[in-house]
Amino acid sequence: MKKIVIAYSGGLDTSYCAKYLSQEENTEIHAVSVNTGGFSEEEIKEIGEKAVKMGAKSYKNINAISTFYNKVVKYLIFGNVLKNNTYPLSVSAERIIQAIEIVNYAKKIGANAIAHGSTGAGNDQVRFDMIFQILAPEIEIITPIRDKQLTRQEEIEYLKSHGVDMNWEKAKYSVNKGLWGTSVGGAETLTSNKSLPEAAFPSQLTETEHKQISLSFKKGELSAMNGKEDSPENIIETLEELASKYAIGRDIHVGDTIIGIKGRVGFEAASATIILKAHHLLEKHNLSKWQLQHKDYIANWYGTHLHEGQYLDPVMRDFEAFLQSSQEQVTGTVSISLHPYRFTLNGIESKFDLMNNGFGKYGEENTAWTANDAKGFIKILSNSGKIHQHVKNQA
Amino acid sequence: MKKIVIAYSGGLDTSYCAKYLSQEENTEIHAVSVNTGGFSEEEIKEIGEKAVKMGAKSYKNINAISTFYNKVVKYLIFGNVLKNNTYPLSVSAERIIQAIEIVNYAKKIGANAIAHGSTGAGNDQVRFDMIFQILAPEIEIITPIRDKQLTRQEEIEYLKSHGVDMNWEKAKYSVNKGLWGTSVGGAETLTSNKSLPEAAFPSQLTETEHKQISLSFKKGELSAMNGKEDSPENIIETLEELASKYAIGRDIHVGDTIIGIKGRVGFEAASATIILKAHHLLEKHNLSKWQLQHKDYIANWYGTHLHEGQYLDPVMRDFEAFLQSSQEQVTGTVSISLHPYRFTLNGIESKFDLMNNGFGKYGEENTAWTANDAKGFIKILSNSGKIHQHVKNQA
Amino acid sequence: MKKIVIAYSGGLDTSYCAKYLSQEENTEIHAVSVNTGGFSEEEIKEIGEKAVKMGAKSYKNINAISTFYNKVVKYLIFGNVLKNNTYPLSVSAERIIQAIEIVNYAKKIGANAIAHGSTGAGNDQVRFDMIFQILAPEIEIITPIRDKQLTRQEEIEYLKSHGVDMNWEKAKYSVNKGLWGTSVGGAETLTSNKSLPEAAFPSQLTETEHKQISLSFKKGELSAMNGKEDSPENIIETLEELASKYAIGRDIHVGDTIIGIKGRVGFEAASATIILKAHHLLEKHNLSKWQLQHKDYIANWYGTHLHEGQYLDPVMRDFEAFLQSSQEQVTGTVSISLHPYRFTLNGIESKFDLMNNGFGKYGEENTAWTANDAKGFIKILSNSGKIHQHVKNQA
Amino acid sequence: MKKIVIAYSGGLDTSYCAKYLSQEENTEIHAVSVNTGGFSEEEIKEIGEKAVKMGAKSYKNINAISTFYNKVVKYLIFGNVLKNNTYPLSVSAERIIQAIEIVNYAKKIGANAIAHGSTGAGNDQVRFDMIFQILAPEIEIITPIRDKQLTRQEEIEYLKSHGVDMNWEKAKYSVNKGLWGTSVGGAETLTSNKSLPEAAFPSQLTETEHKQISLSFKKGELSAMNGKEDSPENIIETLEELASKYAIGRDIHVGDTIIGIKGRVGFEAASATIILKAHHLLEKHNLSKWQLQHKDYIANWYGTHLHEGQYLDPVMRDFEAFLQSSQEQVTGTVSISLHPYRFTLNGIESKFDLMNNGFGKYGEENTAWTANDAKGFIKILSNSGKIHQHVKNQA
Repeated sequence: MKKIVIAYSGGLDTSYCAKYLSQEENTEIHAVSVNTGGFSEEEIKEIGEKAVKMGAKSYKNINAISTFYNKVVKYLIFGNVLKNNTYPLSVSAERIIQAIEIVNYAKKIGANAIAHGSTGAGNDQVRFDMIFQILAPEIEIITPIRDKQLTRQEEIEYLKSHGVDMNWEKAKYSVNKGLWGTSVGGAETLTSNKSLPEAAFPSQLTETEHKQISLSFKKGELSAMNGKEDSPENIIETLEELASKYAIGRDIHVGDTIIGIKGRVGFEAASATIILKAHHLLEKHNLSKWQLQHKDYIANWYGTHLHEGQYLDPVMRDFEAFLQSSQEQVTGTVSISLHPYRFTLNGIESKFDLMNNGFGKYGEENTAWTANDAKGFIKILSNSGKIHQHVKNQA
Repeated sequence: MKKIVIAYSGGLDTSYCAKYLSQEENTEIHAVSVNTGGFSEEEIKEIGEKAVKMGAKSYKNINAISTFYNKVVKYLIFGNVLKNNTYPLSVSAERIIQAIEIVNYAKKIGANAIAHGSTGAGNDQVRFDMIFQILAPEIEIITPIRDKQLTRQEEIEYLKSHGVDMNWEKAKYSVNKGLWGTSVGGAETLTSNKSLPEAAFPSQLTETEHKQISLSFKKGELSAMNGKEDSPENIIETLEELASKYAIGRDIHVGDTIIGIKGRVGFEAASATIILKAHHLLEKHNLSKWQLQHKDYIANWYGTHLHEGQYLDPVMRDFEAFLQSSQEQVTGTVSISLHPYRFTLNGIESKFDLMNNGFGKYGEENTAWTANDAKGFIKILSNSGKIHQHVKNQA
Repeated sequence: MKKIVIAYSGGLDTSYCAKYLSQEENTEIHAVSVNTGGFSEEEIKEIGEKAVKMGAKSYKNINAISTFYNKVVKYLIFGNVLKNNTYPLSVSAERIIQAIEIVNYAKKIGANAIAHGSTGAGNDQVRFDMIFQILAPEIEIITPIRDKQLTRQEEIEYLKSHGVDMNWEKAKYSVNKGLWGTSVGGAETLTSNKSLPEAAFPSQLTETEHKQISLSFKKGELSAMNGKEDSPENIIETLEELASKYAIGRDIHVGDTIIGIKGRVGFEAASATIILKAHHLLEKHNLSKWQLQHKDYIANWYGTHLHEGQYLDPVMRDFEAFLQSSQEQVTGTVSISLHPYRFTLNGIESKFDLMNNGFGKYGEENTAWTANDAKGFIKILSNSGKIHQHVKNQA
Repeated sequence: MKKIVIAYSGGLDTSYCAKYLSQEENTEIHAVSVNTGGFSEEEIKEIGEKAVKMGAKSYKNINAISTFYNKVVKYLIFGNVLKNNTYPLSVSAERIIQAIEIVNYAKKIGANAIAHGSTGAGNDQVRFDMIFQILAPEIEIITPIRDKQLTRQEEIEYLKSHGVDMNWEKAKYSVNKGLWGTSVGGAETLTSNKSLPEAAFPSQLTETEHKQISLSFKKGELSAMNGKEDSPENIIETLEELASKYAIGRDIHVGDTIIGIKGRVGFEAASATIILKAHHLLEKHNLSKWQLQHKDYIANWYGTHLHEGQYLDPVMRDFEAFLQSSQEQVTGTVSISLHPYRFTLNGIESKFDLMNNGFGKYGEENTAWTANDAKGFIKILSNSGKIHQHVKNQA
């Protein structure tokens, strides 16, 4: 008896996989999906019913929203991570947690194999396979879509011939929603020069009155919105609900895939975008110059490694230790104005603000140092330049 | 006879300096201002007349727009430099070129001293003094404002008592305009929590119809706008004229001054902001993953050193060599939509586009590699993780 | 009554300072020295007696060896820190801890001022003053040597005229010994082209028979030497005693001072050199490629900031968190051979060794992957290069 | 007719490949080896004769010593590159140039395929295949050793059965000699804890009298040894001949292979080691602090990418531009003492020396700045720390 866990989304590809694998002799299919933020109760129910139709013996939806926040999103916020200064890594980050949850589930129920529906041309196959192989080298990985390269029509016909006759019409845009943003792919994202039409985005502009909100952070973690305390996950969701009505945080990212080709993806990530920028502003007030400088290096790499599926590399734990330490004084409240398609950061209040503290003020007279102190400072600071110039002139 | 070159802006502080120094026996004052993008012909004429009133023997306005572009702005574009991911370094960058032009002028006319109006609490004193000291250690630096710490009233009275009776009313917002953006300071920027009102910005929203434009680059340098070829400097100015009507590129930056305190400054930089983002998008299509990764390190530091007045450090030439080399294939055209307060990047066209090139496509079936190639890739890529996990499990 | 704590070494400069300050009316001098590894019991007694002769009311020697190890040396080992790949930062690192201990002592006894004997041309004044000012801005800093710039002869005469008639003959080489190494300065180190003679080094070659030893680490910290468990501090000292007889770890470093000039200093650091290299070898076996790569960045900067007296910047705590995390599996034993003037690393044994673990072996046939896996890996790894070349050829 | 270029070394593996491929119908074998520093005239003649015996229609030895120096070694010197602070990348660096020369040769003679003898468990297959695929995607790659995984005995028998009866006794240590060092592998390097015996190294200690030499650099490139001008390549070889008699530059490196496992390799690289350290010392005198700091980042990555076969990535050209620029003032002469198994750097002479230049001296009284300048410098430098401490105390 071969026990197969299948990462099941309810879509055509994974439905084909489920049905196809359930037809093999002596197999038992257990469908699983991991909720990192995009599922409604209703969707979960529908997917479960579909899974059974495809021959699955069981279906499980694992709620991993808090896990996703605590293991990944938290550090993306600490690091103000935008891949190539654009993309909040919405999907990349989710895949990691989904893979870990799936492999843990497979181990728990004693499965011999994990099946997933990734193609051979994307990042997800790498993220899934790597984590499966590392955490459970004894478990076989099965990828019918990658291996067989069927057309949608062939899949539909196979399902029909096995008694599954459903409407598999392809949506014009493939949409992938999660806690940290929604990716959008379509005909335009396969070009380099076309942008996505308004209609491609799941959230539409419905609010036009600008609104002022506040986000509060405690040691880098969201602690309140508009003064109302809540868990970080909930604040992310509440803010998304509000800010997506302003159509904030939309863009198209073009980036390097793990397999060496460039890929383009549209996204909307109202909540993620606002939170990252608000958090960054608070850091600009509360962190030292050197913290800001070195955090950039670390956060940039944290994002790159995460994107490339290297979440389990021990260096990621080391980066997380750095990032956690850096948040010690990132406590305060940021004021933000929402407008259609955009937002502005108005300012911050924090007891750890290094700016307004009764010390010297930029450009203002002050008592913390004298003109002569400043002159001495500049003189010594010029030493290396003077020597270099002197040597160059003489040579 | 002491020949003093004074960096003259026409404002109260430098007017006081000019008059004050011209009163000393045996001095000859030569006023100079350096145009890095903000001066109109009329302003130059006015400043010149004022300078003479203050006792200057001569006034010279040095046009350094092209110098500024070629020595600094070009590399800021190559590096997509936004200080702390926010500020295009508008003022910081100009000061460097102004200082170099002034010290060269002082040497040329055989001056014994350079006077400037910086206070002891800002960045500009450091940038000016460092460059003066390094390039001309033999020239004395005179800074009456820093040394004497007079109030505006005291300065006005001094001028009055020496026959200069003008209206020195302080503008509500101090504005500093240049090729690469305009800084705005006011009561709000001395706080951490207040934003600048619309009226504080010199450019006001006058266009509400969205407009599509294109920017073309050759080896990283602007070569055309809307298909019309022009010099990079001219394109920057033409775009500013257009995009500032959309009130694009406004923000407040809080950053670390060279003297260790935090400073906050408002700015509007429509042209700089659009160009940097358009250039970056083209790079995301045309540069390798490794170029993008390492350029971030270099550009980040280029910006930091420039901000801190280290322009003459030889490492800056080394960074420039890297950045120049990286632009070899940054040739193509970027399509941009302007909207009130914001813009979107629609896409690019380039013969060096690494994305659409007849090779494999992201997420699509392709012939460049097989499913087995992908599996082999992932297997080997997982080796280090597998070994690490294996060792950890055993220990 | 002005209570002055003086950082007292027993040398001419600080003796002058002590006597000079004790002559002022209404002052009370409390001499203090901080032992970060270089003091014998006898020396401490002598310094104490001298201090009293110079007019000090009290003398205290603070044993800070463990503090020094735990706050600084530990992280230097974690980071394999050699400044400019040469210098273990022996003196730089000690000064930080000495300054902190002194300012804490001053606060504890309610002193109004701290005096030290640094000149105005070195790093130590910066390290001392910065830490004093930051941790106790209310305490005055007194630096007679820096301020008065007396010759040795003037100091000696002053002391004589105040009843202190001692032999202050200047040693040919100034030697500064601590837990993490000994610096040596002399006429040669003021040149760029002369090396120090054998006799300049406090330790002389007395062992010529080579000897094999082992060092064991637990999570990056020394835990045993030759299988004998001991504290890290003790192992450092025991190893120094042994290895210094081989005249190991000598070199001259030329580096950038905080004040912008280059400085050259000889040093011997047998124990530090061997430990750093042994620890690094263990890391090369036990850490992932990415840990090794990123640790270099962090350790390099940790060393630079420490050297420049930035120990109190919060980024140093963040770096320490990273370094601590990275040591999770740095447990094992390194075998080392000592020879006159040099040592060799023979190998390591560790249960966390990522090399010998029953997985595939470098250059050997193996069962962990096939030839086809390797080919698939290389094919995909070549994708980005192929595309780049293709685009370049076409353009 | 299939024209196959085979990378031929004369060893058993490539001899097997040559014979094996020559047996296929309609093939024409052209053997080639690329001399990057390790071949004598006699060896070349022998290899050529052997190639013909194995069925090759032609044999060509390409002299690529200067190419190797100009394309790679030069930049390794500019960057003071030691992989993991240990290994001069001797073999890694050669493979790149060999691959490029071979693929160029194959294109020139119109070959359809390139064969090489790499196994599936090492770095060389990746370096070779990547460069072949990128520069000539149309040329087939043939790797019988990787594909068939024969034992030595099987290969020998195959050759015998095809009329080649030679002595293929395996050397106890596999040795790979080139311009930039010699790698040594053996039973010990497959362990983690054993070191190589003296006899494993091709060069033996024959000089025991210490000797003083000098190396001169012009803009970072070797220009003279002991005052005698010569080409960099020749100086590298001359120095190797001399210094290898002192058994200098031996070590064992353990590093990360491209395929994710750890590998250990012995090496001797007397000339490379001495040159890198001498060049670095000159840089410590002549480069600015910021150049030294940032060069570390760039050189570290240059080495990593080169090691991993990424030589053709355009970022390598950008790094080279940085490194070239950084050498502008790296001109001067370094004095070195050779001793058995080790060497010492005695000092440098250079007109670009930033240390001895009539400016202030480290720790000495000077006239370039006053005690008050130094105090002002330190005061301002302490600002950020003071503010941080103040805020922390208050919170």
